[in-house]
Amino acid sequence: MNDATAAILHGPKDVRIERHPIPQPAPGEVLVEIGAVGLCGSDLHYYAHGENGPNVLRSPTALGHEAAGTVLGDGGPLPAGTRVAIEPAIPCGRCHACRAGRYNQCPHGRCFGSPPTDGALTGHLTVPAEFAHPLPGDLPLGSGALIEPLAVALHAVRRGNVAAGDRVLVTGAGPIGLLVLQAARAVGAGETVVTDINPGRLAHAHRLGADRTLDTSREPLPQEPLFDIALDCSGIEAALTAAAHAVRPGGTLVAVGNPPQPRTTLPLAWMQRQELSLVTAFRYAGEFPAAVSLAAAGRVDLESLITSRFPLERSADAFRTALCDPAQLKVVIEP
Amino acid sequence: MNDATAAILHGPKDVRIERHPIPQPAPGEVLVEIGAVGLCGSDLHYYAHGENGPNVLRSPTALGHEAAGTVLGDGGPLPAGTRVAIEPAIPCGRCHACRAGRYNQCPHGRCFGSPPTDGALTGHLTVPAEFAHPLPGDLPLGSGALIEPLAVALHAVRRGNVAAGDRVLVTGAGPIGLLVLQAARAVGAGETVVTDINPGRLAHAHRLGADRTLDTSREPLPQEPLFDIALDCSGIEAALTAAAHAVRPGGTLVAVGNPPQPRTTLPLAWMQRQELSLVTAFRYAGEFPAAVSLAAAGRVDLESLITSRFPLERSADAFRTALCDPAQLKVVIEP
Amino acid sequence: MNDATAAILHGPKDVRIERHPIPQPAPGEVLVEIGAVGLCGSDLHYYAHGENGPNVLRSPTALGHEAAGTVLGDGGPLPAGTRVAIEPAIPCGRCHACRAGRYNQCPHGRCFGSPPTDGALTGHLTVPAEFAHPLPGDLPLGSGALIEPLAVALHAVRRGNVAAGDRVLVTGAGPIGLLVLQAARAVGAGETVVTDINPGRLAHAHRLGADRTLDTSREPLPQEPLFDIALDCSGIEAALTAAAHAVRPGGTLVAVGNPPQPRTTLPLAWMQRQELSLVTAFRYAGEFPAAVSLAAAGRVDLESLITSRFPLERSADAFRTALCDPAQLKVVIEP
Amino acid sequence: MNDATAAILHGPKDVRIERHPIPQPAPGEVLVEIGAVGLCGSDLHYYAHGENGPNVLRSPTALGHEAAGTVLGDGGPLPAGTRVAIEPAIPCGRCHACRAGRYNQCPHGRCFGSPPTDGALTGHLTVPAEFAHPLPGDLPLGSGALIEPLAVALHAVRRGNVAAGDRVLVTGAGPIGLLVLQAARAVGAGETVVTDINPGRLAHAHRLGADRTLDTSREPLPQEPLFDIALDCSGIEAALTAAAHAVRPGGTLVAVGNPPQPRTTLPLAWMQRQELSLVTAFRYAGEFPAAVSLAAAGRVDLESLITSRFPLERSADAFRTALCDPAQLKVVIEP
Repeated sequence: MNDATAAILHGPKDVRIERHPIPQPAPGEVLVEIGAVGLCGSDLHYYAHGENGPNVLRSPTALGHEAAGTVLGDGGPLPAGTRVAIEPAIPCGRCHACRAGRYNQCPHGRCFGSPPTDGALTGHLTVPAEFAHPLPGDLPLGSGALIEPLAVALHAVRRGNVAAGDRVLVTGAGPIGLLVLQAARAVGAGETVVTDINPGRLAHAHRLGADRTLDTSREPLPQEPLFDIALDCSGIEAALTAAAHAVRPGGTLVAVGNPPQPRTTLPLAWMQRQELSLVTAFRYAGEFPAAVSLAAAGRVDLESLITSRFPLERSADAFRTALCDPAQLKVVIEP
Repeated sequence: MNDATAAILHGPKDVRIERHPIPQPAPGEVLVEIGAVGLCGSDLHYYAHGENGPNVLRSPTALGHEAAGTVLGDGGPLPAGTRVAIEPAIPCGRCHACRAGRYNQCPHGRCFGSPPTDGALTGHLTVPAEFAHPLPGDLPLGSGALIEPLAVALHAVRRGNVAAGDRVLVTGAGPIGLLVLQAARAVGAGETVVTDINPGRLAHAHRLGADRTLDTSREPLPQEPLFDIALDCSGIEAALTAAAHAVRPGGTLVAVGNPPQPRTTLPLAWMQRQELSLVTAFRYAGEFPAAVSLAAAGRVDLESLITSRFPLERSADAFRTALCDPAQLKVVIEP
Repeated sequence: MNDATAAILHGPKDVRIERHPIPQPAPGEVLVEIGAVGLCGSDLHYYAHGENGPNVLRSPTALGHEAAGTVLGDGGPLPAGTRVAIEPAIPCGRCHACRAGRYNQCPHGRCFGSPPTDGALTGHLTVPAEFAHPLPGDLPLGSGALIEPLAVALHAVRRGNVAAGDRVLVTGAGPIGLLVLQAARAVGAGETVVTDINPGRLAHAHRLGADRTLDTSREPLPQEPLFDIALDCSGIEAALTAAAHAVRPGGTLVAVGNPPQPRTTLPLAWMQRQELSLVTAFRYAGEFPAAVSLAAAGRVDLESLITSRFPLERSADAFRTALCDPAQLKVVIEP
Repeated sequence: MNDATAAILHGPKDVRIERHPIPQPAPGEVLVEIGAVGLCGSDLHYYAHGENGPNVLRSPTALGHEAAGTVLGDGGPLPAGTRVAIEPAIPCGRCHACRAGRYNQCPHGRCFGSPPTDGALTGHLTVPAEFAHPLPGDLPLGSGALIEPLAVALHAVRRGNVAAGDRVLVTGAGPIGLLVLQAARAVGAGETVVTDINPGRLAHAHRLGADRTLDTSREPLPQEPLFDIALDCSGIEAALTAAAHAVRPGGTLVAVGNPPQPRTTLPLAWMQRQELSLVTAFRYAGEFPAAVSLAAAGRVDLESLITSRFPLERSADAFRTALCDPAQLKVVIEP
């Protein structure tokens, strides 16, 4: 048992099932046998193009940063058998950003599944104990894998200072949009409205508690200051612009979705007269425990976002399905 | 229809049913026919002793600051028939505190039901339209009257910066404690623990979602840093001291309940080594819309707090019951 | 003494000296005889084009919103002879924004000198007493007029959360940039760098304490994360873009200068990976007392920004000079 | 050169000059030859009583946590000869508090000069490079040693949210009070008032910029809401109580000075009606760079606080002088 099956990305659309050595935990680390891995947009960029924004796949790498599993081995900082969600971006803990509590901005860190660092599709990861967050007994590992995007959503909601009673607009109803919707509701948002151009996703938003949904391919967002905060989960320039005209004076736009192009044109003169803020959100810094807590209490539904499951051996099918089937929300690979 | 029945407090334990003129709304005001009035601890102090802290009843006054009702008359800023919760403390809108958004600290304001200003037990109030908060159609006026203490609870939770996933201790399970519990949960609190010495109240806390309850007459609170934030709704020195030893370093104590005596002894040296903050909360500043929103969405249960209802004519019985019956949570008078 | 000399703008480049009635103070107001009026960029837009952004001069109006003067008349809320800086944007005091302390976003307010509301070039204004900020005896009225743009600068610095030791970049060294520089230093900024393309303005920035100045027409801003916060006082897209590449991860851009065109293109993908915030600043909300305090203590130099002074009768010359002479910083009219 | 002269505390009033091994820096650490060590109140508690609050001297220990010196040796993270101020409390960098940016609350850390960890009176310390803050060339090492208490003062000012224009009360004009005064002014405080019962200290406060000073042994503090924030640097119950009656509604008390006894009695009922906050401050978390920046820019005067200097060999005299001579502010030992 010194190596195990892994799914390694060798280049665009080239996922291979190979043997991969099982790592040894250092002091303070736990060895986690991965039980579920979610695929996200950045994974699909690497899979389709061999790159994601400025990051390029230069050597074969196992992807997978949304992951949960079970602690192996005795004598470590967590008992064998503990089920954990893995926080994949490990900061240095010493630099200025780390000491300021903004460890998601640590320039010295590494992130599982971000090339060239191998991720959870190796089947096993060694993780500093503080980044292995215990899951309650009844939360499935599939949901455990989605703690990571839920932490992204909570971070975005926190960056936007969503408060009790706030009227919240979510533009884009993909997995992150649906989690942002739920995170906003979990912190007490008042009326919530979700927009997208995919009726199935809007229906899902409605089931998850959106007060209203709007198909913007059929009807534009009213250009009235109806919202306190808008969280854009699409990255689309038109959605950000529409959102800027839909929040009240002094309101906040949170750019959560990655823009498809480097530069984005915004109605800055208007934003300034309205004193709007445009906040961005990158990963998470401290939100994993809250994400586990909300999921454990059933205040956020992760399970319904999982639309397909594949065994590790069928990882290539998993990537292909996630990339090509617009009906998918979250595809999960189960090593 | 120039006067109406009112319940006027003339002195300690001297509530009289009398005729009282119906006020005329000024421009920008609405005339509200009161449908429900909650009694709170400060009302009972006035009733029992003719005073509340430094405030003294010097002339006959109608109490009642937790109130909801129905707008009368056409042509005003809100349509006749609109059901509203009344925000009773009306600030000046011009002073330094008002301009800073801390209008609960306005030294020039007046508050319905705070002697010598008559309150809702007159049966009618004229209210600046901005302080009459429309209620959704299906929220009973009894719940509408409890929007005020819910706003108190939300303000306390906001003062304490309760955030998603926070472990929250509530000491004291009276009406305010039970609302603080619910408000904390509504903004995403993680584990919640409620303490009291009244088993019935603790059972109610459990029904409202407390993860654990503790009867501190039988078992002391563990002196371990288990909580991020403690909200004391008892005012009792021992509860604050125990809470100070139960929050983590850097944690926050919120003093919500009024202390029974002017001075309180606290473990300040310990608090300083742990870098704890002691925050107080007074009324509310902007929380009514959020309170209505949470109640309307069913995320807070107000109705179950109402343990007795009395018609206006039996106001004296209502005060007596609220004062003497420890099984009561919230007594509501329905004019 | 029922009317007085005023400078009225009738249309583009059409300033006329006319008689104008002296207003009567309502209760709670003071009548201020204006002693100094600063001209700002928005005044020059109205003067040159008859409009400023979406606001259009539709009828003859006296401009002037940077103003200081002397209280006239006895028996009002401030003694006759009190020298005051005037806060020109008067909010309603009742709406949601006002009650939240964001009174600069009040949609119901009026602003002296913003057409069609007459401003300080009438020579007299009636002002709610809370918006007439007493000046210490030795502060010249010219400096008093510049309390308004200093409040703008302090608001921008507050919106950007400039803290002790922060490394601050100011792009644009016009009057607002020079005040932002000083405001940042007054709240403890560490290293400050100012950029512009006008050597005279950069020299002034240096005299006012900038640690470094950079003429970006000769040398580009290094694209390294050298700053915690960048405050753009130019409105220029290229300056904002350069600033976005010069702040550290998690840093803040504050858009203070009005963009010359409605839409601005920004490197949003980069900003998101760096988790930058783009905050805008509009007017001020509560900063006048702090501005007076800093000016009175000599921690901010307002007087050196005044490069020309004109009597009211020569207002047309004043506007022309401010518009056409690039060596001017702040032109002041003294009625 | 394997050992060097050190001043070791063996028990109450028992300081011995001994040889002490020079430590070897680990990777990422620098070896600092100490040039100046300030004595603070906690040092004097250990010296006088062999304990400080709950911490007890159980074995011989070199005190000294206010220290500056010069980096020795080549090839480390900082060049030999770099002059540095030492941040003495080294956190673990991994725990919940550390990841939240509250590293002063790390339960796993160690602090130079806090028994049993040896401090700067050993003459040499090995310090993680991130905790050795380079000093500008012209700042004397004596001032460098006082960067630590200045960081304490800045942290207190930050905890109290002192903002531009705030009226600030400082109760207690010892070294920390005088630094808090300066830190408050450095972040833009408006009127500052300092109280004490020692006329010499009050005169020093006046020289350092206090607008007013008050000898409370002769005249009590007016019980009017004159201040936005009060920072108590005395720890005295009476001073905290007086301060609570001297801040405006919604204001903040910061407890900076260590209380001489475990429990403190406060006017909590009043504080609650006024919605005051009582914030404590413990050490610092991230303030060293700002402290260096302010000292380097000459905006804070550290040098004038040094009232006596002793060579290491006369450390016993230094402790005795600091403990017994009320005219002393800061005694510095120069190894």
